[in-house]
Amino acid sequence: MKISEERLLSDLHLLKCFTDTPGVGVTRFSYGESDRRARQFIKEAAESHGFSVRTDPIGNMYIGHQEMDGKRNKIRIGSHIDTVRNGGWLDGIYGIASGLEVLRTLSENESERVSEVEVVIFAEEEGSNFGSTMTGSKFVTGIYGEKDLDRLKNDDQISLREMLMNCSFPPYQEEEVLWDFSSMKAMLELHIEQGPVLEREGKSIGIVDGIFGMKTIEITITGTGNHAGATPMKYRRDALATAALCIAEVERVAKTDPEGIVVATVGKMSVLPNCSNVIPEKVIFTVEVRDKREERIRSFINKIEEAIKMISDQRETDLEIRSLADSRPFRMDNRIMKLMDRLASEAGIHHRIMDSGAVHDTCIIAPHVPSGMLFVPSIGGRSHVPFEDTNADDLVGGAQLLLDTVLNI
Amino acid sequence: MKISEERLLSDLHLLKCFTDTPGVGVTRFSYGESDRRARQFIKEAAESHGFSVRTDPIGNMYIGHQEMDGKRNKIRIGSHIDTVRNGGWLDGIYGIASGLEVLRTLSENESERVSEVEVVIFAEEEGSNFGSTMTGSKFVTGIYGEKDLDRLKNDDQISLREMLMNCSFPPYQEEEVLWDFSSMKAMLELHIEQGPVLEREGKSIGIVDGIFGMKTIEITITGTGNHAGATPMKYRRDALATAALCIAEVERVAKTDPEGIVVATVGKMSVLPNCSNVIPEKVIFTVEVRDKREERIRSFINKIEEAIKMISDQRETDLEIRSLADSRPFRMDNRIMKLMDRLASEAGIHHRIMDSGAVHDTCIIAPHVPSGMLFVPSIGGRSHVPFEDTNADDLVGGAQLLLDTVLNI
Repeated sequence: MKISEERLLSDLHLLKCFTDTPGVGVTRFSYGESDRRARQFIKEAAESHGFSVRTDPIGNMYIGHQEMDGKRNKIRIGSHIDTVRNGGWLDGIYGIASGLEVLRTLSENESERVSEVEVVIFAEEEGSNFGSTMTGSKFVTGIYGEKDLDRLKNDDQISLREMLMNCSFPPYQEEEVLWDFSSMKAMLELHIEQGPVLEREGKSIGIVDGIFGMKTIEITITGTGNHAGATPMKYRRDALATAALCIAEVERVAKTDPEGIVVATVGKMSVLPNCSNVIPEKVIFTVEVRDKREERIRSFINKIEEAIKMISDQRETDLEIRSLADSRPFRMDNRIMKLMDRLASEAGIHHRIMDSGAVHDTCIIAPHVPSGMLFVPSIGGRSHVPFEDTNADDLVGGAQLLLDTVLNI
Repeated sequence: MKISEERLLSDLHLLKCFTDTPGVGVTRFSYGESDRRARQFIKEAAESHGFSVRTDPIGNMYIGHQEMDGKRNKIRIGSHIDTVRNGGWLDGIYGIASGLEVLRTLSENESERVSEVEVVIFAEEEGSNFGSTMTGSKFVTGIYGEKDLDRLKNDDQISLREMLMNCSFPPYQEEEVLWDFSSMKAMLELHIEQGPVLEREGKSIGIVDGIFGMKTIEITITGTGNHAGATPMKYRRDALATAALCIAEVERVAKTDPEGIVVATVGKMSVLPNCSNVIPEKVIFTVEVRDKREERIRSFINKIEEAIKMISDQRETDLEIRSLADSRPFRMDNRIMKLMDRLASEAGIHHRIMDSGAVHDTCIIAPHVPSGMLFVPSIGGRSHVPFEDTNADDLVGGAQLLLDTVLNI
């Protein structure tokens, strides 16, 4: 059974036009106008093939067979269609377009499986509105509940509850949102890798094993802000010069991992007062450490904190460290992983088992139901940028392997 | 002849109330309401002692004896009353309040010198409106002219010309702004040090010799922005990790100066996209090098640029370097410096000859007329912050030495 290459690619190319920023990548925040139009397009495409579409009170959208309700062995294929600002055309929506194509192919081939498969668009995965990622999947698993409707607010202080009122979704009721995992057989997600590993190694498919856990800390270094001309080098307590040594140390420590697995990143930084002629008084930066083993996340965070403390002490700056976020590593379902591995081998696809340093909606679902994830390569390892891309052959190959997995699970 | 300690300190304490940000330092931008009220206060204080006050088309304000016009041997005492945002209570205005006190003391003591002394408030010294410092003194020396009225714009795109139209200054005419230096004997300025040298060395007065020159460059490092979880350390081109090594190197290179004179500062920095979970794609930062010898500014800029190039090349990031600003070092008038040195010694003041790393209005005037500058200590070396302060004894001592200089010049 083969998916339609043409239909999948055509859908993807049409869907990338639903953007708030034509010409500079895809900007499609959940609950916004581009999101509404993209959902309408997907809904019409699904309904024209006889599928029914419903949306829950949070904006998670479900596409499936009309006789789906009450089925026990549901296989859900999920991802998201929202993006970061000026993001790429494939992140998330590739998994949704592929899910839709799997449904259509099953239907056209009159497969009995069609009535067991449901495609789920999780709302607000990127956290572009509220800074909190995987919102839709956190609601279906009960990590988020009604209180979060008011807590989650965007930069303009508009809450999720207020935003939902402007959409035509049913009113919030917990039982309309939470999933009954006992009715599910599996959760599957197909996503672009968003990293360089597959491309560098010449692979067309990655089958996800471990999902990295993560710990993010925030470092505040306070020195003495002063006139850059009037303060000799020996009298300075320069917060940025101290922070620079700390940031260099974060990278150095991470690279001591003999297996080359742990990653540590300083991604966000602010300098105060940030004037070219004033010695920086205060620097605040994040340090994020990820690994597939929790004890190694802890040990590298400790090493980094110790190194930073030593540098700050030596240079007589003040130091504050606070914890920002924490998530535990875990593994995808071993049987689904093995099945995907066998199917890829049979299809002659260059593939590998790999860990995911990124967290996806399926990672939120995985603790509750056997779950599997497939990656296709990202050209240049790039994602969350306008030139995010994947070879057409890889896009088609990924969707076909998703179909094969659905058929053989 | 002694100044009135009480009147000087009282003026300073009253003037600090003219702020847009009561309770969080002094914010008094030129041409704004707090500036207008402070000028009005100074005008009334001057006029109540029989002095006349005029303002030129740029907003430079002149306070002097009614018989001043046409005098040949004018001694001007200048500084500014504008501040940075949330700045301190002494920066600039201390020199103006002291100048006013010198005038009053000369008048009360019926000194003939009173008719030769003029106090000048230079407009827009800090560049808080237009990002361009020492605006008033640049206009009186012809560095700026009519074309700059439209070129200089604040963040809201309001030009200097538009801002001047809202003030009750006379219409712009070059001859009303430019100074006739042939009519001047000397330019004097008394200012807080804005650095830690005097306090650390237990001195109450600094007599300025060299004024540091400066070169500012902007460094742009471009790597590859990517998902912080999905990109192994070995595949990264992290612009911030590279920048951190460069910034640490700026400090290290500056500290190799055996005389400890050169200063190098990275004060301003931006990170893109600046998200905790994205490897930084681009980092832009300034490097400012100051010294009293021009060839050493050049040589340290070269060393720093070479070091940054080497680091960026090794780490395979892209590098752009562009020049932002340039000013030449120069020296205050030797005779005035020697006079101040002698007067300070006779008064038994702990003082030293020192260089100034900061540039002041008088530095713009100095190439045209014999000029001298005095510094008083800044507690903790702090300035441009709400807790900027100087001991009352030092404030009084500085103003007295200014008077003594005026009497003996």
